[in-house]
Amino acid sequence: MQTTLDSIKSYLLQLQQSICDALEELDGTAKFIDDQWHREEGGGGLSKVIQNGAVFEKGGVNFSHVHGKLPEILKSETRTADYFHATGVSIVIHPVNPFVPIIHMNVRYFCMSENAESAIIDEWFGGGIDVSPAYPNITDTLHLHTNLKAACDKFNDTFYAEFKTWCDTYFTIRHRNEMRGVGGIFYDHLRPKDSEHKEHLFEFMQEIGNSFIPIYKEIVNNNMHKTYTERNKEWQFIRRGRYAEFNLVYDRGTHFGLKTNGRIESILMSLPPHAEWKYNFIPEKDSEEEKAMEFFQPISWF
Amino acid sequence: MQTTLDSIKSYLLQLQQSICDALEELDGTAKFIDDQWHREEGGGGLSKVIQNGAVFEKGGVNFSHVHGKLPEILKSETRTADYFHATGVSIVIHPVNPFVPIIHMNVRYFCMSENAESAIIDEWFGGGIDVSPAYPNITDTLHLHTNLKAACDKFNDTFYAEFKTWCDTYFTIRHRNEMRGVGGIFYDHLRPKDSEHKEHLFEFMQEIGNSFIPIYKEIVNNNMHKTYTERNKEWQFIRRGRYAEFNLVYDRGTHFGLKTNGRIESILMSLPPHAEWKYNFIPEKDSEEEKAMEFFQPISWF
Repeated sequence: MQTTLDSIKSYLLQLQQSICDALEELDGTAKFIDDQWHREEGGGGLSKVIQNGAVFEKGGVNFSHVHGKLPEILKSETRTADYFHATGVSIVIHPVNPFVPIIHMNVRYFCMSENAESAIIDEWFGGGIDVSPAYPNITDTLHLHTNLKAACDKFNDTFYAEFKTWCDTYFTIRHRNEMRGVGGIFYDHLRPKDSEHKEHLFEFMQEIGNSFIPIYKEIVNNNMHKTYTERNKEWQFIRRGRYAEFNLVYDRGTHFGLKTNGRIESILMSLPPHAEWKYNFIPEKDSEEEKAMEFFQPISWF
Repeated sequence: MQTTLDSIKSYLLQLQQSICDALEELDGTAKFIDDQWHREEGGGGLSKVIQNGAVFEKGGVNFSHVHGKLPEILKSETRTADYFHATGVSIVIHPVNPFVPIIHMNVRYFCMSENAESAIIDEWFGGGIDVSPAYPNITDTLHLHTNLKAACDKFNDTFYAEFKTWCDTYFTIRHRNEMRGVGGIFYDHLRPKDSEHKEHLFEFMQEIGNSFIPIYKEIVNNNMHKTYTERNKEWQFIRRGRYAEFNLVYDRGTHFGLKTNGRIESILMSLPPHAEWKYNFIPEKDSEEEKAMEFFQPISWF
């Protein structure tokens, strides 16, 4: 089977729907609201947003397919490409309960050509899943990494190690020398060598996309009924502050979107519903919060 | 009188203390806590922080004097400078009451030389005061701009117009095409031509520094006893989210600090104690919140 932009888009739309269905079932009360948008220069997207649920305080499952003239900042001197397509699904979920982690997923495909009708000059797949708990635990973290490793191992022995390290590096809040969570995988610029390889990389995209619900559902179920205190909630707000810091200072996707006149609300749906910054907050010695900090460093889980 | 680094520092330290005294008096309950820090590469600072007051929820009045080898990103090909001093006072105050605006002030002096002992090659003054209300009103905004214009006019007829426009441009959240507040003044790279001019620019620094309390005290007194609702508080949180967006995405001082291994907690003390991001929040038609938005554009006040 030939992998085309259409086949990728059709998978992504179906993935978006199935993830929203599963999250609504997990939440039990709130429903996703559709927000369709168009991009003046070409394409658009369908944002699906959930707010004020029993389990999920704020979340977005966004599909987009944008295309048009290649933005200057993506142009290369050695290539004649002047047209691009970018399509993907991006997810960020901020749960109510401080023991349920934030999850982020993105799977995307990018291609460039000389003009709207001409053949592809360059193309690649990118994506990843990573988890940011306020209170990490070994069980959930191993569940995450075991599932991601299994997904990667089906495709390439080197993928997990490589993409796990990439994720640890990428999602580091450099000015604090800490990761925003417990990592996961992150990959980019996976370029197909031929049509068979393209099919293979598209299957990898599907493998990662399809692993989202099995990974998150178990973690949500493990933690959503835990009782929590004001202090737990405060720590969640502080970690959400760190999440906002990372996204606004370092995230390339966020900066790319803000600088290329992307759709602001879809880009910034990743920001937490509520965040806090206290001056020089340091967790108490031997507290659960201090233990949490030990997880926010690159750790070999296997 | 010769303006020296020592005379500037001694003014800044006295300014810091007098501002903290006046803010404590306004607050009535909370006290500033001292947090002295040292910079490995040279210098350090004294952060004074107030939290959970009756009037001020979180605020910092920070003095710093850092010096040492000039960071690579400040080096110029045409100059032989390899040593710098930077000293200044930076203030951000986040009040409790949503009708009392956030205020920001910075006054700073920067100089470069070939080495620690040699003569100054280049030097300049910079600074400004700007105000970010959730609910702006004409009285307070005119009070702010009238005072800043009067301070500027004592020194140069062109200062206010120039620095007001600079402030409007600088403190714009570009991806939202809105200012973070109602502006004020912003200036940088005011280079002394000779020692008399340096004294003059130092006096301008003092004029701006000394105008902080008269400006803010009246605005605080005008608004601190207003009663407010949950909805007012929510709008304050949303505008604080915008404040965090600006500081983390655009503020050059913040980025410079984060990239040159500055003191994180002193740099990020500007972040709000509490902020919110709702998906695609649009103020109701004809509401106070919608009217507030009209102020967040460049407006000629005179």
